[in-house]
Amino acid sequence: MPVDVRIVEVGPRDGLQNEKTDIGTANKIALIDRLSKTGLRSIEATAFVSPKWVPQMADAAEVMAGIARAPGVSYPVLVPNEAGYERARAAGAEEVAVFTAASEAFNLKNTNAGIDESLRRFAPVLARAKADGVKVRGYVSTVLGCPYQGEVPLTEVVRVARALHEMGCYEISLGDTIGVGTPGKARAMLKAVAGEVPMAALAIHFHDTWGQALANALACLEEGVAVVDSAVSGAGGCPYAKGASGNVASEDVVYMLHGLGIRTGIDLDLLADTGRWLAALLGRDTGSKAGKALGAR
Amino acid sequence: MPVDVRIVEVGPRDGLQNEKTDIGTANKIALIDRLSKTGLRSIEATAFVSPKWVPQMADAAEVMAGIARAPGVSYPVLVPNEAGYERARAAGAEEVAVFTAASEAFNLKNTNAGIDESLRRFAPVLARAKADGVKVRGYVSTVLGCPYQGEVPLTEVVRVARALHEMGCYEISLGDTIGVGTPGKARAMLKAVAGEVPMAALAIHFHDTWGQALANALACLEEGVAVVDSAVSGAGGCPYAKGASGNVASEDVVYMLHGLGIRTGIDLDLLADTGRWLAALLGRDTGSKAGKALGAR
Repeated sequence: MPVDVRIVEVGPRDGLQNEKTDIGTANKIALIDRLSKTGLRSIEATAFVSPKWVPQMADAAEVMAGIARAPGVSYPVLVPNEAGYERARAAGAEEVAVFTAASEAFNLKNTNAGIDESLRRFAPVLARAKADGVKVRGYVSTVLGCPYQGEVPLTEVVRVARALHEMGCYEISLGDTIGVGTPGKARAMLKAVAGEVPMAALAIHFHDTWGQALANALACLEEGVAVVDSAVSGAGGCPYAKGASGNVASEDVVYMLHGLGIRTGIDLDLLADTGRWLAALLGRDTGSKAGKALGAR
Repeated sequence: MPVDVRIVEVGPRDGLQNEKTDIGTANKIALIDRLSKTGLRSIEATAFVSPKWVPQMADAAEVMAGIARAPGVSYPVLVPNEAGYERARAAGAEEVAVFTAASEAFNLKNTNAGIDESLRRFAPVLARAKADGVKVRGYVSTVLGCPYQGEVPLTEVVRVARALHEMGCYEISLGDTIGVGTPGKARAMLKAVAGEVPMAALAIHFHDTWGQALANALACLEEGVAVVDSAVSGAGGCPYAKGASGNVASEDVVYMLHGLGIRTGIDLDLLADTGRWLAALLGRDTGSKAGKALGAR
């Protein structure tokens, strides 16, 4: 298992994008600023996508303008194409993320493009980012199952992850978008990808729709992965299962990691405070069990 | 990892004992009868304890008289002492369970007796059970932490588990009563106990107060444990953390086990239906994420 793990906090983007309640731009900025004080080193801040399709992220430029960027903290933003990259850069983004699915059916539904077409659209983004000295993260979604096609061949997950890495993504985040994976499958998927992309360039991104996220993360940590995506308060949801849980809660991941003797640099109490604060804004209980237990003390 | 896992369903006892809502005797009977049809082989039905201290279990004899016992299914009941054993036998119990903590402070608070005094009280129960051909399960609680004394020495966990096994308990269930454990600690605890008691005589019993239960179970399955206690719908709570989660949800455990290729003999759809039915009686959402995802289909 790794000695140090970097948490990529995706609550402000993947979390809030999938919450029904809009907490407003000022609260989004406050959320990121609170997270910046917890010891997190990567906070996915927003997405420069079409406001027509993703109205939750329409205030991306205001969010980027409003946050107080802490030294040593990276604030990646999602960009779907070159136009998004330009908007992100104009807003001062110094790290971006591109995304595609490992399932052709999902990618077509989600982005109206096949996987190969998505990869082609990323080429100019990667080229410009390289010239600009901007780091690019790559997401592969539906790595353990797809709401449309069901099984996703491991060979496709490996192929897409390898393509993103070869295009210049410094890190590939492997996402179980619908949270159907179990630990043996998660481990096998990670091992297959690590056969083609160095483990040091891989991250795991689990959703807790079926309650498996932390167990899946444990299996992958045992294989040596050292970057974990998670969302404070377990923010987010699953558009494919009404009322289901969203991202694995950062607090629960950090509690597990610290219990395993793995360093994160994160102050769990501060993180859990922020999670409960966010949950109150969203009008519900925190989705983090560790956060709830800490709050009951 | 084991090929087969036996789930010990503790919802009707450990679950309902820690729920604020009393679903009533008829519903308790209906719950057990529904669970009997899912393929479960062990269902902890009730407890023959003092109704003064545990009013939720005051109807133990009625419950035992009302349920339809399915062939091949065992219905253990908790007994604190010889008087409880007699009541349980009069109600037709064919398997009983005794319980003590690994933490002296917890045992004193919980049962008004030290650990050694508890063990002495069990001696006549074990002797009579042996003569009667009644199986006895032993619980050790607070194996990964205590709400009163904090750390619990592993040597104490091993000592108590070994004592129960030597007294004649056919199975020792190791309980993280307050759900504070993490996978490395859970694994180390299980390994320590398995050094003195055969792994085939051990069960794990995790609460999800800090969100760690399924990851802890995975670590212990990797060590070879093949019996897992859980509660349908994640019934129960934690008296030491208000609003916190209770037992790990049976549905989430079964989903993980089946995903790992481990057989349980359980029909997950039937189990999840029962979990949502119980949650409705308790006036809340199911505490099982797999149960919720199945219900959203």
